[in-house]
This record gives sequence, C-alpha cells and structure tokens, in this order.
Amino acid sequence: MPFAATVLTLYPEMFPGPLGLSLAGRALARGDWSLETVQIRDFATDRHRTVDDTPAGGGAGMVLRADVVAAALDSVSGRGRPVLALTPRGAPITQARIRALAAGPGAILLCGRFEGFDERIFEARAIEQVSLADIVLSGGEPAALAILDACIRLLPGVMGAASSGAEESFEEGLLEYPHYTRPVTWEGRTIPEVLRSGDHARIAAWRKARAEDDTRSRRPDLWERHRGARGQPASGARHDDEGH
Amino acid sequence: MPFAATVLTLYPEMFPGPLGLSLAGRALARGDWSLETVQIRDFATDRHRTVDDTPAGGGAGMVLRADVVAAALDSVSGRGRPVLALTPRGAPITQARIRALAAGPGAILLCGRFEGFDERIFEARAIEQVSLADIVLSGGEPAALAILDACIRLLPGVMGAASSGAEESFEEGLLEYPHYTRPVTWEGRTIPEVLRSGDHARIAAWRKARAEDDTRSRRPDLWERHRGARGQPASGARHDDEGH
Repeated sequence: MPFAATVLTLYPEMFPGPLGLSLAGRALARGDWSLETVQIRDFATDRHRTVDDTPAGGGAGMVLRADVVAAALDSVSGRGRPVLALTPRGAPITQARIRALAAGPGAILLCGRFEGFDERIFEARAIEQVSLADIVLSGGEPAALAILDACIRLLPGVMGAASSGAEESFEEGLLEYPHYTRPVTWEGRTIPEVLRSGDHARIAAWRKARAEDDTRSRRPDLWERHRGARGQPASGARHDDEGH
Repeated sequence: MPFAATVLTLYPEMFPGPLGLSLAGRALARGDWSLETVQIRDFATDRHRTVDDTPAGGGAGMVLRADVVAAALDSVSGRGRPVLALTPRGAPITQARIRALAAGPGAILLCGRFEGFDERIFEARAIEQVSLADIVLSGGEPAALAILDACIRLLPGVMGAASSGAEESFEEGLLEYPHYTRPVTWEGRTIPEVLRSGDHARIAAWRKARAEDDTRSRRPDLWERHRGARGQPASGARHDDEGH
C-alpha cells in the first residue's frame, strides 16, 4: 500500500496545492502516495454548520469544538496511521520523525485554525501534537504541506538517482556541507581547490570538516546534541567508539 | 506601501497556493500584501535553459548555479527588503524574526530545489539563510509559504478582532495556555472550573501557570531561554524586576 495521507481541514481546497507539482505531484500522479481531505465543517451538527465557539474564560479568537473535530476524526479509517495535530503547543518536528512517518502506512493530519483546538480532543483521542517551527501560522495547513512534502520525498522511487540519501542536513545530526558547481570561477570566486582535486579521500575529509564547522558555528544546539550522541565530553553517555 | 513579497522559484505556479485562500487570500485580494513570482529558469543563458549542474567534488543530486540565481536576484527591485534564502543550513526562523519582517516593507524569498545553492551566491550577495525546521524539504517553496503565512497574519487589518495578539505561543517565549470551548461537558470531560468562574484574576493566573507548566514540560529549550531572559538563576542577566 502506498503512503496514505488524510488531511482534516476547514480548507480542503488548499490541498494538494504545492504538493500537486514537481516531485510530490509526479509521485501523486504515479500513485506513490495518496491524498484524501476531510472537511471538518461537514461534521458540524447545527444548521449553521458551526465548528468553533468563544474561549471558555474569555479572550480573543475562536476555539475549534472538540465534538466536531472528534466526529471528523472518527470518520476516518485509521489503518494504523498516526494522527498528528499541527499546533505550536506540540513537539517540534524532526527529520527522524519524518523518516519514521515515511516508512509507515501514512499519516492523518489535523489542521486547526483560529485559536486552536479544544484541549479535550487531545485527552480523548490518540493524537500526537506536532509543531513545525517556533512561529505562529494562520492555521495548520502550511505546516501539513511542509510535513507531507518532507515525507513524500523519502518514499521509495520518488527521488530516484537525485537522492543524496544520508548526506543531508540533520540526517547525521549535522548541517550538510556547502555545495559548489560550474562555472569554476564566478565573479572572481573560485570553487575550493580540494573539490576539483579528484582526490576522494581529501574531498570527504573537507566535507566532513565543513559540516562540523558550520554546525558548530551556525547551530550550537545541534552541535551539542551531536557531540552528546557521539559520546563527547560535553554532554554525556558514550555509546560508540568513533573518534573525531 | 503594503507588504511586498517576491518569490524566486522554479515553481512559480505553487504561489499563492494556500495563501490565495482564507485569511491570506482575502488580505491579498484587499491589497494588504502583494505577491510577485520570478521564474529562476528565465535567467538561464544557454538554449536548454539550464539552472543546475553536478556538484563539484562529486556526489548525488544537482546544485543551483550561482550565476543564474544571481541574475534572477539582480532583476528584482529590492526596495529595502531583506533577501531570505530557504535552506536547512540557515538560521532557524523565529516568531521575533517574523514580527520584524511583517513590520517592514516585505521580503524577497529565494527557493532552492535539488541539493541547494552554489555557496558562492551567499558570499556575493546580501542573503539571509533561513531554515524553517530541522527537516529536509523537496525545495524552499513549502517553507516560503509557511513564512509568508506567518508574516501576513500579523499585517495591519488582517486578523482584526480575531487576533489575540501577544497572548500566543512564542510571543512571550512561552507556549500558549490550552483552550476550551462549548460544550461544557463532552464525553464526560468538563471544562476546568476556573474558566467558568468569571473570576478574571483567577483565570489569568491559571492560564499563566498552565503556559509555564506546559512550556517547562514540553519545551525545556524554550523554558531555559525564558528563564534566562527573565533573569532567573538558570542562565543569567537580570534585566527586569518582575517576580515569578
């Protein structure tokens, strides 16, 4: 069975959107993944099709009703797929989580709008709260598009030979090394000599050093975690024998 | 002048995409922001309209040529707007950066595909490298959509009375408190009593405590920074007199 995405949203017309083009769009057309949208509003029970109400305790904005969201969610055939709600209160998404999702049967993505969901939905249903970034979006839809995009490119056959697989940012807890291509000299700037040397061992060493240097200077948070995982003194438990 | 977004991409047809609907779409129709796309391929100089080439030093994938990207960028009238390239090697986007962007004249967003940009483009032009999340996308486009969405909702008049302004996740370095709405009891779960008390001081105190508790348990990274900024012992400089 191909990766099956189900998106619960008040704006189903936002999908597939950018995922209907390029890599993801071709994969969708080939059947490498499938997309189903569920209009949450269809599960409202009053004649005004109300999905939201004012926050208990007061305050601006509107909150998505737990009963309506639950009815929408309960209408979806789970088939072993995890349910992810996109919310800034969630756990930050990681490439490891993306890789696990892409290796599974698919994902059910729950997109909020307004002030968010009635909290009881998270107590009453098995839902993983996920945050795309430490920014506030107008709704979960742009986050769902980004997360699906990240999953789809990892599906078998989607990237083909274009894939650089494990040599990418975050895959080993490091940023990727910088890239260069023709022309050799552009605006007086020349591709680093080592990359033109043909010496594969030197090239690999240079790339590893640049990935480490750039991670250390640009992303000290990733660097600390990387050192920790590799058993460096900074943060803990040694679990392998690889040196640096 | 309204907020002016220019997106340089190989897939201009991905825009406005989800930003053409809902809050952002209505704001676009009203002229609260403007959108221009630039097809990078139009700046290729050979008859095959080549925009990429193989990585110097070998490896899988293709790299966007610096000369073609520079020509596309140089064609855009900057008008004081920052240029942001979406790349996993960039600095993680923050709500503070979003707020600064939204308060300015707009943004020029540079979307890569394939293995990324020839690094020399970043040395030769004033470009801010920004990362949406620690995940790898098929290109910068989904990231550009999310970042623009976050900016647009902050533009004057876009959210109107629906805005809860400063009381949102990340705005004070904390996650937002949880929300509840009608029905009062759903599947045996009742809205917390304090939120139904009408006692505004108690409600405010409960929400502050929940925001702090949830940030501490869900996002220890944010909590550490929050304590640091507030002058708590954990990480440093006291700069105000507010107690906890």
